[in-house]
Amino acid sequence: MEKIYLDNASTTVLSAEVLNAMMPAMTEVYGNSASLHSFGRDAAALVDESRDKIAESINAKSNEIYFTSSGSEANTWAIIGIAMANRARGNHIITTKIEHQSTLEACKYLERNGFKVTYLDVDQNGFIRFTDLFSKMDSNTILLSFCGANNEIGTIQNLKAIAETAHEKGVLVHLDAVQLFGNMNLDVENLGVDAMTISAHKFYGPKGIACLYLSNNVKIENLIFGGNQERGKRGGTINTAGVVGFAKAAEIAMRDMRTNTHKLRLISEYFISRLNESVENIKINANVRQKLPNIISVTFTGVDGESLLTKLDMAGVAVSMGSACTSNSLTVSHVLTAIGLSNDDARSTIRFSLGKNNSYEELDRAVGIIKRNVEDLRAYSSTYSSKIRKRKGDKNV
Amino acid sequence: MEKIYLDNASTTVLSAEVLNAMMPAMTEVYGNSASLHSFGRDAAALVDESRDKIAESINAKSNEIYFTSSGSEANTWAIIGIAMANRARGNHIITTKIEHQSTLEACKYLERNGFKVTYLDVDQNGFIRFTDLFSKMDSNTILLSFCGANNEIGTIQNLKAIAETAHEKGVLVHLDAVQLFGNMNLDVENLGVDAMTISAHKFYGPKGIACLYLSNNVKIENLIFGGNQERGKRGGTINTAGVVGFAKAAEIAMRDMRTNTHKLRLISEYFISRLNESVENIKINANVRQKLPNIISVTFTGVDGESLLTKLDMAGVAVSMGSACTSNSLTVSHVLTAIGLSNDDARSTIRFSLGKNNSYEELDRAVGIIKRNVEDLRAYSSTYSSKIRKRKGDKNV
Repeated sequence: MEKIYLDNASTTVLSAEVLNAMMPAMTEVYGNSASLHSFGRDAAALVDESRDKIAESINAKSNEIYFTSSGSEANTWAIIGIAMANRARGNHIITTKIEHQSTLEACKYLERNGFKVTYLDVDQNGFIRFTDLFSKMDSNTILLSFCGANNEIGTIQNLKAIAETAHEKGVLVHLDAVQLFGNMNLDVENLGVDAMTISAHKFYGPKGIACLYLSNNVKIENLIFGGNQERGKRGGTINTAGVVGFAKAAEIAMRDMRTNTHKLRLISEYFISRLNESVENIKINANVRQKLPNIISVTFTGVDGESLLTKLDMAGVAVSMGSACTSNSLTVSHVLTAIGLSNDDARSTIRFSLGKNNSYEELDRAVGIIKRNVEDLRAYSSTYSSKIRKRKGDKNV
Repeated sequence: MEKIYLDNASTTVLSAEVLNAMMPAMTEVYGNSASLHSFGRDAAALVDESRDKIAESINAKSNEIYFTSSGSEANTWAIIGIAMANRARGNHIITTKIEHQSTLEACKYLERNGFKVTYLDVDQNGFIRFTDLFSKMDSNTILLSFCGANNEIGTIQNLKAIAETAHEKGVLVHLDAVQLFGNMNLDVENLGVDAMTISAHKFYGPKGIACLYLSNNVKIENLIFGGNQERGKRGGTINTAGVVGFAKAAEIAMRDMRTNTHKLRLISEYFISRLNESVENIKINANVRQKLPNIISVTFTGVDGESLLTKLDMAGVAVSMGSACTSNSLTVSHVLTAIGLSNDDARSTIRFSLGKNNSYEELDRAVGIIKRNVEDLRAYSSTYSSKIRKRKGDKNV
């Protein structure tokens, strides 16, 4: 039986169309794009064309796109680099409690180096509260970094309103758009963000390539030193094939956005309704309209999430408990606890993230496998029986 | 007529064997190597196997290999990360005046942040002087970072003796081995280095992937934050295909090292002798035995290097004036001036870097093209005629 991949928020399969586009840069166009001769210029032409395409897809200027090796690099760079370059203006940074580890760790680095960081609470659906954001900014605040669509629960923030609120107080805005790109238009002018992270492997592009959009009006310190690459702001020979693949994936994502998001909404709704019909005592977290439909966070009451993940994996269904980046850690998801789940419920939660290649047939099979394994695990779970007993007791009161 | 690529120190063509090895990681093995399910484990297995191969090629432990996106990232990380993590022991760093930009810029960063950096002079062939190194180290010195084989002139330092000298004073050693790997055995135990940079695209591997070897005994601060990837020391989803390509390229480089270095020595000697026969008033810089034979730095007296580079390019011969990383800068090579060339001579210098795919026939053609263009440029060069007149005059005195 074919395995079923429901972990597209961790990474996606490289599209065949993208791989084809990358081939010239992995064969005949092998020059270093920084070299002055024709081999170099041929590579530089591919890089320039790719940079233009990516810039266009977010309404940025080409010289506002800086290639990095990952979303983590772009997040680290944006936060530390902007904070350091603007420290004359203040030493206060704002972010939220539900960010990606790269953001949280970059903020901790800043705290060790003379900055103050406010980690905003979010509501039970993962939304930033405006009043909270507004009240936390002061004359020392120089940067707000926030994730546009949460990678565990899918909640999409009110991007434009948040950026406006920050700008009113003269605070620069970095948007982690890693999960967002391809799901909605990200016009940086319209959104009013000063910096934005995009990563190719989240939308059927290659791993190892990402970018930071950085407005020409914003100062940044380098993270990776080197020569004149990326206008002197990021060292390292440019990964031509990766850059070309990124641009092609971005082009396809923009071209097919309407079709993809429509399909993802349909199959996600189908998956949720089938799951609700088939498995009792489950809870869909952050079950709001303003979210990525394909990221579905489900709490299976009384079930140990890790055991369920393992059983689903053995049955050929790939899911995760949260970010792949933290998958080996034993701690409970900081995102789920931030939206109010108990540690028990957080440990009972699985993230399903659907992709454009998933079929209804796969989802039917997946639901069957989930149902069987959840029931198996609950049959042996004393926690489950006591919880359910308690709930039923509550109802009778 | 086929173009002739003589810029292999900038980057090399991706080997077909390497590309083949990368294909599974760009098609069916698409999981995130940090994911716990079978898609993730399949990717992790490729990464682990690759890491083992690379570790083995330098006699390191697998958990001492940290993947990065470039040599520049690895150099930046090693220098800043080790300095910051060990600053309780001292705030003095030693490097040389002929390092790669990534090293020099990372050192400047440290200078802006409370460190003192000594930039060692080198002799007229680019060698570090032991007495100099020895006298510059004091109880505050924590790190020596140096390039094993210079990228512009090819000089190979006395690696082991330098590392021993540093260790005698308790100074950690970072070796930039970007140009070295594949040209000699780099047994980290035997060499006694604590950290070492290797970059895949310099030996027919893919761009966008490199590594830092870091001894388990050495502390380092993170440069790129993120999740648990690379034992929590370097964030970002691992570029599986890049890693696999890196390992395959390393395997081939080790397997074919004897053949390749033998061929490179032969064709380089042939090239130099043909050049000497055909073009008058040239000087081979750092013309010593202990060097990478394939990096050939030639001063064409009285010729503007950039004009020559352009003319050679138009005639189909790709060369460089130094590091590709600094190719767009108007400054004179810091390496050439450090070994005593005048600004004029530095501006008249071309780096030829031969590769394993170059043929005698190509070199013959290249020499003919070089001869013709050098003569053309000299015919119109007033500098040349006056210089030569002066030299002839000198002789007559």
